[in-house]
Amino acid sequence: MKLATLRLADGTTSATVALDAGYLPLDAPDAGQLLARPQWRETVAAAVEAHAANAGAAVVPAADAELAAAVPAPGKVVCCGLNYADHILEMGRELPEYPTLFAKFADTLTGPQDALVVEGSERVDWEAELAVVVGRELRNATEEEAAAAIAGYTVANDVSMRDWQQRTLQWLQGKAFDASTPVGPVVVTADEFGPAPTFEVRGYVNGELVQRGDTATLVYGPARLLSYISSFTTLRPGDLVLTGTPGGVGMGMNPPRFLADGDVLATEIDGIGRLENTLNLIPAAAPAAARA
Amino acid sequence: MKLATLRLADGTTSATVALDAGYLPLDAPDAGQLLARPQWRETVAAAVEAHAANAGAAVVPAADAELAAAVPAPGKVVCCGLNYADHILEMGRELPEYPTLFAKFADTLTGPQDALVVEGSERVDWEAELAVVVGRELRNATEEEAAAAIAGYTVANDVSMRDWQQRTLQWLQGKAFDASTPVGPVVVTADEFGPAPTFEVRGYVNGELVQRGDTATLVYGPARLLSYISSFTTLRPGDLVLTGTPGGVGMGMNPPRFLADGDVLATEIDGIGRLENTLNLIPAAAPAAARA
Repeated sequence: MKLATLRLADGTTSATVALDAGYLPLDAPDAGQLLARPQWRETVAAAVEAHAANAGAAVVPAADAELAAAVPAPGKVVCCGLNYADHILEMGRELPEYPTLFAKFADTLTGPQDALVVEGSERVDWEAELAVVVGRELRNATEEEAAAAIAGYTVANDVSMRDWQQRTLQWLQGKAFDASTPVGPVVVTADEFGPAPTFEVRGYVNGELVQRGDTATLVYGPARLLSYISSFTTLRPGDLVLTGTPGGVGMGMNPPRFLADGDVLATEIDGIGRLENTLNLIPAAAPAAARA
Repeated sequence: MKLATLRLADGTTSATVALDAGYLPLDAPDAGQLLARPQWRETVAAAVEAHAANAGAAVVPAADAELAAAVPAPGKVVCCGLNYADHILEMGRELPEYPTLFAKFADTLTGPQDALVVEGSERVDWEAELAVVVGRELRNATEEEAAAAIAGYTVANDVSMRDWQQRTLQWLQGKAFDASTPVGPVVVTADEFGPAPTFEVRGYVNGELVQRGDTATLVYGPARLLSYISSFTTLRPGDLVLTGTPGGVGMGMNPPRFLADGDVLATEIDGIGRLENTLNLIPAAAPAAARA
């Protein structure tokens, strides 16, 4: 099943399920809040049944659908850095003993086709990633419990303002620009895959393949990552966990390469979907940063 | 005005205003959500008037009141590290050009008298701090706009699990243990102070004064900090910003000193109030961390 979040004409959003004919709206404000309901499968089944009987909501054709971040309002967004073993080893580093974790805000997320409006950064970089949507409350969970609590998988790009990220030891300010992390287009529910599925994650800049990684090489795969996070904080349905990016980011190139205004960033995972976001880069206007 | 959040017998919470006789419940689920209403002052005034006329809710005597974190459910909790100039200079470091920022979750917060239940850390440390509650939406705000958007001030202790904090370069996992950051007891609204008020922040372990700092020496004072944060993300009413801790943390002692099970951590700011939290330290049980 492919769940997503539709933007409606009245400015609100609706959870939706992708059918062949397009996106069928569901009775929940977004896919994350739908997944927080224990009976969410029944909600979807009832809507699909009503639609099949021509009694339910109208399907929005894919060409007309405007999608928000697949889960636009998670209570927690937890991200993992330095997680692809092949990339870590090729850089000559040792595999980490613990996952490097940082947070984003719900406000950091944006839709799969949205322009990325970034103000005041000269080093906008890409990080194509697999993201996991939590389906069940997790605290001190084993890997097995964590695996069973994965609601589904989606695509994200942890777009990073490297100049801001490197201003201090903590990355937050370069990772949490409002509406800078596209997520979607859909959450593919875990039952569509076998146990512990692996994915190829690809990133493109203006059509050029710049990143390609296999999540089979993650040091902390989805279940292990969720188990670890749950050892210090509770994960809840709709929460979003970004699993890290493979090699090929602009900062690692020689010379380093960053996105320019108008560049098109695409992020793909076969079996889930594709994000395509154009950068709208605005020179710094507010004097806040310069006052330091 | 002193606002807080009361725990009710039915497991829910209520915003409350502190009166001489005790805590008067208000018609909002917590102080943060109260402050998000443009008309919150009228809500308080109406409740106080009804109470004075013996027509409103009953006051909960302070001795019977169980307080939650003063703002228990902020959309964003942003924390600043390395922010006291006197402490930075005494350590022989240069003043930072930018504030070091990191995030906590709403789940990280806890009440002003709550036991701190920490599992699996052997280096629990203290960080007494002034915290600021946002009263108005801020984006790309000037310092003047940010100053005018401060709803009030409260006390927090950024209790830090140093062993977890130092596992990786990013501090999140040592800073975001569930229910480890006490906040309160009340939010004193900004109108109780002059413009740009300063405070003495004190921390005690088992009655011994271990930290004392003057917020006049903050490199990034409250308005400057909010202005800076608003240059990359939107701050909203009820959001919480922790302003950093002065010298005197356990990690900086020679030899380093950490909290033991049963230790009482107190955090005080004159004119706001006092947190008093007993540590309940539980040895690691879940194997998640050890699996790494």
